[in-house]
Amino acid sequence: MKIPETLLIETLNKPGALAKVLEVAGKYDLFVDNMRSVSLDQDRITWEMTLEYDAEEHATFIDDINALPGVALKGKSDRVFTRHEGGKIEIASKAPIQSYTELREIYTPGVARVCLAIQKNPELAMRYTNLANTIAIVTNGTAILGLGHIGAVAGLPVMEGKSALFKHFANISCIPILIENTEKKTVIETVINIAPSFAAIQLEDIAAPDCFDIETQLRERLKMPVLHDDQHGTAVVTLGALLSATNRIGMDLKAARVGVIGLGAAGLGISRLLLGYGVRELLGSDLSAGEVQRLEKIGGKGSDLAGLMKKSEVVVATTGVKGLIKAEMVQKGQVILALTNPDPEIEPSVALQAGAAFAADGKAVNNVLAFPGLFRGVLDARVDHFTDAMLFAAAEALASSCGEGEILPRVLDQSVHDKVSHAVFTAAKGH
Amino acid sequence: MKIPETLLIETLNKPGALAKVLEVAGKYDLFVDNMRSVSLDQDRITWEMTLEYDAEEHATFIDDINALPGVALKGKSDRVFTRHEGGKIEIASKAPIQSYTELREIYTPGVARVCLAIQKNPELAMRYTNLANTIAIVTNGTAILGLGHIGAVAGLPVMEGKSALFKHFANISCIPILIENTEKKTVIETVINIAPSFAAIQLEDIAAPDCFDIETQLRERLKMPVLHDDQHGTAVVTLGALLSATNRIGMDLKAARVGVIGLGAAGLGISRLLLGYGVRELLGSDLSAGEVQRLEKIGGKGSDLAGLMKKSEVVVATTGVKGLIKAEMVQKGQVILALTNPDPEIEPSVALQAGAAFAADGKAVNNVLAFPGLFRGVLDARVDHFTDAMLFAAAEALASSCGEGEILPRVLDQSVHDKVSHAVFTAAKGH
Repeated sequence: MKIPETLLIETLNKPGALAKVLEVAGKYDLFVDNMRSVSLDQDRITWEMTLEYDAEEHATFIDDINALPGVALKGKSDRVFTRHEGGKIEIASKAPIQSYTELREIYTPGVARVCLAIQKNPELAMRYTNLANTIAIVTNGTAILGLGHIGAVAGLPVMEGKSALFKHFANISCIPILIENTEKKTVIETVINIAPSFAAIQLEDIAAPDCFDIETQLRERLKMPVLHDDQHGTAVVTLGALLSATNRIGMDLKAARVGVIGLGAAGLGISRLLLGYGVRELLGSDLSAGEVQRLEKIGGKGSDLAGLMKKSEVVVATTGVKGLIKAEMVQKGQVILALTNPDPEIEPSVALQAGAAFAADGKAVNNVLAFPGLFRGVLDARVDHFTDAMLFAAAEALASSCGEGEILPRVLDQSVHDKVSHAVFTAAKGH
Repeated sequence: MKIPETLLIETLNKPGALAKVLEVAGKYDLFVDNMRSVSLDQDRITWEMTLEYDAEEHATFIDDINALPGVALKGKSDRVFTRHEGGKIEIASKAPIQSYTELREIYTPGVARVCLAIQKNPELAMRYTNLANTIAIVTNGTAILGLGHIGAVAGLPVMEGKSALFKHFANISCIPILIENTEKKTVIETVINIAPSFAAIQLEDIAAPDCFDIETQLRERLKMPVLHDDQHGTAVVTLGALLSATNRIGMDLKAARVGVIGLGAAGLGISRLLLGYGVRELLGSDLSAGEVQRLEKIGGKGSDLAGLMKKSEVVVATTGVKGLIKAEMVQKGQVILALTNPDPEIEPSVALQAGAAFAADGKAVNNVLAFPGLFRGVLDARVDHFTDAMLFAAAEALASSCGEGEILPRVLDQSVHDKVSHAVFTAAKGH
């Protein structure tokens, strides 16, 4: 698997020296994510270079670099690890604790009056505690990123990362809850038991098919918004991307036949949302018959890969299989989103050359565009459930926020998150 | 029940006017916690006055105030509620999210490398996440402060208050976990299921006798420090107070016969710690035979109240019963801690007049003195369990930190918390 690796590479400090290194990287088909010089003297310069790198696949790359005259790999940077040192989130106190009066007001005995007020009127907990702004991000560690079942604690850096993003883009306090027990029933009952601690629940990186039952049961049994981001967050961003892509080429998404390849959490979530949004026909293919049955239950039609490629005007792939879609399968005028990261089912350039009207891979389809605004919106609206109307509104907000030539807006643009949350809020309020 | 209430009282702005109001408060036996003027013109002045006030017991107080010439109750201040508005804690992000490089390092794809490192060596989670500094404060809402079973959500202001104190005094991230299901088994299994999210567990405001089994089972089944503060935090502070009190009057605590009145969570916790510390003999009295049996199992002796008062050189009362100890029960030279708040089993002045060598009530015996340092110490030492040696060390650190004439040090003095955590750390390391 390709994960960015940051190498420290020393070259001679003379024109053309760096080009030789990058030429080798190019030969190995390596993307350069970032680079900067970290030390420099008259003769030599050291570059910190971040490459999307697979230790096995690119085993001889380092040897080839070292073989260049004057070039040497000095080591690997621990910058990413340094970034995570001590964790990415913490609890902050908003209460002043400088005087005994303050202490007696935030803690005993003064706090008793606030407790009694909440006992009398539980709704006041939303006002006099941080409850209304606190959500849990719950994982059982069975599908962390594309890494599979590596365990909930090993997934904590992801949960902390999302928590930091929730705070940054939507000012939400998001608490990682790690459950190593993977029994469906255990996950469900545990979340229900601790649910009073939170205003909403985000389920995260829970493998299919358990993720479907876990979410469904929690939605039925809890009176608060519950959302499995891998299904619906990804679906919202994908719908947003499809709206802007089809709009750009003058296609009507609702009138199109859409093919979804791969019916795991993401693929099924996308299918469900597209069917709800009103696409005319939805074909789905998956190696597992169970997954296809699940699609047919919600109104889609099973298909084989070749048939799906032949019949669909819009294709979305979330299979995890690099290069699954061959150039000869592409139909003229197709819209193709090949979402598997970092190696898509078909490179967009190949798809376009083969006749696609529009093609993109998963780099731009980042669910960070959706989850902060989705939760900010429902928390502000104080509603009990996410509805499809809210998800549609979020997707449309994304599509309408794109700049010239963009399929989706920029993740770091705060105004995008504000637009998504406002759209969700408005849909929740039924305006 | 007396809880501080902040009244807005307008008087004439002339010498002696305020004295009349305070005279009435004195007649009603009301303690004045704090006061300040909030508006002032030539003729009239408004005071914000915080009184320990019971709406039923002091029903006619307001009438008597209003009857004074020129005096009027203008309302109640919502200052305490304002203090709690929006809650007292929140999640803060420690990660910079200004550039795409930072985003790709704290979240996908860079975070994958950190996840895989933790999968390979789970101990790295303590380094590359906030796990090592994160604890849960878990309540089932059955014994919130002295208010009883008011529910876990109604107890959230207390949990947030403790979390704010953990952060302020010990830089610990403490997450409130509210469980409304009061079945012992449910509380235990739920905490075990989410335990991977935390480095230690503080149990809080869980009623006796369930608190004993819940703590015992969690300690057996979890490889992390678990502490029920109502038992052991209170015990540490009480032991600290007894050490400084007996030291002051030249009594040897270990050689003394100690009587503990009331064997709930606090009373039993105190008894257990004192027996472990080595007091010669410990008598306990409680209305419930079950509680007395529990004491006898750990080496104490059951007694009736009269016998206990007659035979004990040191008396600790945690009954919740105002005025339970009569002046005529007090023995000459006794040390008496009457800990029920806000109305003790015997007023210290009454006990001293009746011949006690030392007497105090619960005002100074604040468990805020213990819990931040106890947890900071075990987290820094990276040990799996609290031991009595750590609790003794914390109590001795408190006793040795007292200033002239103090029974316990000042809660707001940061150096006290640092001393407690250092003492616990040293005991944990076995130095």
